[in-house]
Amino acid sequence: MSKFREAFADQLKDLHSAESQIREALPKVVKLATDAELKEALEDHLVKTKDHIQRLDEILNQLGEGPEGVVCKGIQGLIEEGDEHINEAEAGPLRDAIIIASAQKIEHYEISAYGTARTWAEELGLDDAAGLLNETLDEEADADETLTSIAEGGLLAEGVNEEAAATR
Amino acid sequence: MSKFREAFADQLKDLHSAESQIREALPKVVKLATDAELKEALEDHLVKTKDHIQRLDEILNQLGEGPEGVVCKGIQGLIEEGDEHINEAEAGPLRDAIIIASAQKIEHYEISAYGTARTWAEELGLDDAAGLLNETLDEEADADETLTSIAEGGLLAEGVNEEAAATR
Repeated sequence: MSKFREAFADQLKDLHSAESQIREALPKVVKLATDAELKEALEDHLVKTKDHIQRLDEILNQLGEGPEGVVCKGIQGLIEEGDEHINEAEAGPLRDAIIIASAQKIEHYEISAYGTARTWAEELGLDDAAGLLNETLDEEADADETLTSIAEGGLLAEGVNEEAAATR
Repeated sequence: MSKFREAFADQLKDLHSAESQIREALPKVVKLATDAELKEALEDHLVKTKDHIQRLDEILNQLGEGPEGVVCKGIQGLIEEGDEHINEAEAGPLRDAIIIASAQKIEHYEISAYGTARTWAEELGLDDAAGLLNETLDEEADADETLTSIAEGGLLAEGVNEEAAATR
């Protein structure tokens, strides 16, 4: 295995640990959310997270590698940071706005990491892996956009941020 | 101060700690990079990071707050993670590709955090703060694009990823 292929496998193992930590943390965050649309978006993302883990297992398997023994420190720090801020706020729009802010930091981690992994897979000529990673990348970007629209609202509905700003 | 304004100040303090940690880490990463264009992009970003800290100081000052006593755990985890991967590789294109991957995770953290902070400032009617945060957001997005173009190369130049893939 070339060194670049090894570095690619390392990125995938980090992502596998990241997704596993997210799968663990998400159900608790769903319970802490109030807004129905936000709860639904987080629950939907939990289902997608399980798909993302399966895709990573598939690619690692093709490389003859397993996901064992790696802890993604980036996501660990992001989850800890989110946890602190979320628990400081009472249930309601303010806590929801903080949940969205924290979740978007995690989405952006994944957008960046999957973007790199997809591009490295292409460079290695691993077209099937690149295709799978691209599917996940698109779903992470969609999840980020959904969170933005819940935060900002629309022409007909008040967003979570506007309600949070009214919290006294 | 409303609770939402307090949460906004917390986000700014987190960002202040994040930028300070980046200012501390970047000179070491510049030394570990080989590609001239990458070195230049990182050095340029170090200068911009100092501007970003000044803008945060200015906004916190207007809110009657200081940056003291907060450690941004998200960036701490991202820097630790990057550090491990970067130090595993020998100097050259492979290490450069890993530096770019790690730096883009950090850029994406900042893109997400400044996006939230800018939108919250608008919601709070703090137009000057929103303007300053938006300037930084644009610079972080530009830095991310520059790193992508160094990784992927162009019609005339080989990118760092292509050179890294040739590492045996």
